[in-house]
Amino acid sequence: MSKEATIHDVARLAHVSPSTVSNLLNGRLDRMRPATIERIQHAIDQLGYTPSQVARQLKTGHAPILGLIVPSVANPFWGAFTRAVEETALSRGYHVLLGNSERDPLREQLYAEEMWGHGIRGIIFGTSPFSVAHLFGLIQRGLHIVAFDRHTLRDDHVDIDSVCIDNVQATLLATKHLLALGHRRIGFLSGPIRTVSRIDRLAGYRTALTEAGLKLDPQLIWEGSTSGSFGDIEGAELGRSGAREIMSLDDPPTALIAINDMYAIGAYAGARDLGLRIPQDISIIGIDDIALAEVVEPPLTTIRQPLPQMMHVAVERLIARLEKTADLTPMHLTLTPQLIIRNSTAPVSYLA
Amino acid sequence: MSKEATIHDVARLAHVSPSTVSNLLNGRLDRMRPATIERIQHAIDQLGYTPSQVARQLKTGHAPILGLIVPSVANPFWGAFTRAVEETALSRGYHVLLGNSERDPLREQLYAEEMWGHGIRGIIFGTSPFSVAHLFGLIQRGLHIVAFDRHTLRDDHVDIDSVCIDNVQATLLATKHLLALGHRRIGFLSGPIRTVSRIDRLAGYRTALTEAGLKLDPQLIWEGSTSGSFGDIEGAELGRSGAREIMSLDDPPTALIAINDMYAIGAYAGARDLGLRIPQDISIIGIDDIALAEVVEPPLTTIRQPLPQMMHVAVERLIARLEKTADLTPMHLTLTPQLIIRNSTAPVSYLA
Repeated sequence: MSKEATIHDVARLAHVSPSTVSNLLNGRLDRMRPATIERIQHAIDQLGYTPSQVARQLKTGHAPILGLIVPSVANPFWGAFTRAVEETALSRGYHVLLGNSERDPLREQLYAEEMWGHGIRGIIFGTSPFSVAHLFGLIQRGLHIVAFDRHTLRDDHVDIDSVCIDNVQATLLATKHLLALGHRRIGFLSGPIRTVSRIDRLAGYRTALTEAGLKLDPQLIWEGSTSGSFGDIEGAELGRSGAREIMSLDDPPTALIAINDMYAIGAYAGARDLGLRIPQDISIIGIDDIALAEVVEPPLTTIRQPLPQMMHVAVERLIARLEKTADLTPMHLTLTPQLIIRNSTAPVSYLA
Repeated sequence: MSKEATIHDVARLAHVSPSTVSNLLNGRLDRMRPATIERIQHAIDQLGYTPSQVARQLKTGHAPILGLIVPSVANPFWGAFTRAVEETALSRGYHVLLGNSERDPLREQLYAEEMWGHGIRGIIFGTSPFSVAHLFGLIQRGLHIVAFDRHTLRDDHVDIDSVCIDNVQATLLATKHLLALGHRRIGFLSGPIRTVSRIDRLAGYRTALTEAGLKLDPQLIWEGSTSGSFGDIEGAELGRSGAREIMSLDDPPTALIAINDMYAIGAYAGARDLGLRIPQDISIIGIDDIALAEVVEPPLTTIRQPLPQMMHVAVERLIARLEKTADLTPMHLTLTPQLIIRNSTAPVSYLA
């Protein structure tokens, strides 16, 4: 194998133009005959040719990689989150490698140790853990972390960069929106409330109700779980079960706040299972504003997390730490969530 | 830092029982007081304690990692795909690192080179590329690949293990289901038809129509794109635009086949934008059977890909190659897709 084979050598050997080779390398095969593809592949093969963009990057060692640990990309929110992280990272010449931890601290620690062992020195954590004890060792060894959805807690022994929305504010907004529409019995659907962000969201809901002079009814807080998981994968199923259970109470709520949009979309199905119309019989509001929120019927009222903006800051911060261009004072960015009113919430009906 | 600190040392120093330490390490913090958490974190910190499961795995070098390259986890199908890969991998003691390529051959090659450079020797490719020329170099150096959704093509210079459904069969089933319901004008909604699986799906649609003695109408094949991408991220938006365009034809179809469920869910919104009811005015069928398919209204008729089964085989195959327990004859597994009839398809209405 010649190490200096160029696209021109490949083109010459295959009896095609360099732009045809380039078309093949970039997947533009629309008007290419199979015989031509075969000849080019033969030539690439024979010359051991590596495209120059790849070669350039390999010459200076491998492209730096950022680690990303999220609960599970089975929830489209984490898919969009991952995409937002990748977009900024790629624009800065970094690649992203992803691990799904399902918020299991042991799995999280193993992934982080693996990434560390493979030379990764910066990780974005999206899992909002209550304790970060499992990451202390790595942080002491020099791992840089930016946490999403988790500000530093009083009990933490390390101060970690963080980016999140104000999760208390998120449910304050949601609850106040429903209160303004006349709702007085408002349900809260969630998976296990054992992460920093979920605890905050529950707090916002409680605060808004208390401020409105309403009594809290523990029956209206539904905390579902599947075999001990956090319900990140089964959000829609849990939202469906939750809505069915809570709407079957003797004195059911007239509105539901879902811990995220997937739970809300599941709650749509649960409400329909009981013959309830949205929003005539029940108002439903989510959190996240995933792409599906405006596609479902009715389009979902929700609280938007400004993902691209947050992830841009998170990635830039991590890179600054890795490249030692930032001072080392930990940064905590909290963005204000935004209420997006669509068609799943409406004034309470007194006809029911 | 003592290297031999055990959970018992941590417990003793923190004045708690070992099971309390274990609870904290595993995130079970329900009944734990903040002061207790703080004491345990201090003790872990001071002793440099690493949980034994982690330590065990680290002692024998880092846990082996499988690479996974998919178009984009922004489509929930790839989220579920990733989860299925992880499930089998974790049960066999492997971790999974994921890259999203958006089917860009250059990005794909870079990710694969990165993974190789970090010691990863087996990758599952989910991107169904037409040419695998960009991977030849790595394959020659010893990279093991299992391809999803892409059988080996006549023009390939290497024979790669593959796992897929019969994609021709998938759309044959979908089209025949609609034909049996009396539909004669059937639309086909897709992103760029430039992957092996999409070409196969278009072929199945054409074959079924031709077999039924119907003329193919090129107006009914909608091939959308956003800025040259494959539409993996914008599936719902593309499905929505596609349905709107195709249903605005002078002689619109009475049924739509979507290239996957996200396009189908988008087509729901597009149909509703025009005031069309599903399935009374338009039947819609998807492919994949993602979890959302039975949550949306109406529940989506679709062609199921048996993901857990396929990914189990793919991961086992890759591990067998890595551990050299399999003979080296390439394997091509093709599974039969299954028609799941729900409520989005109905007999054609002659009243329209």
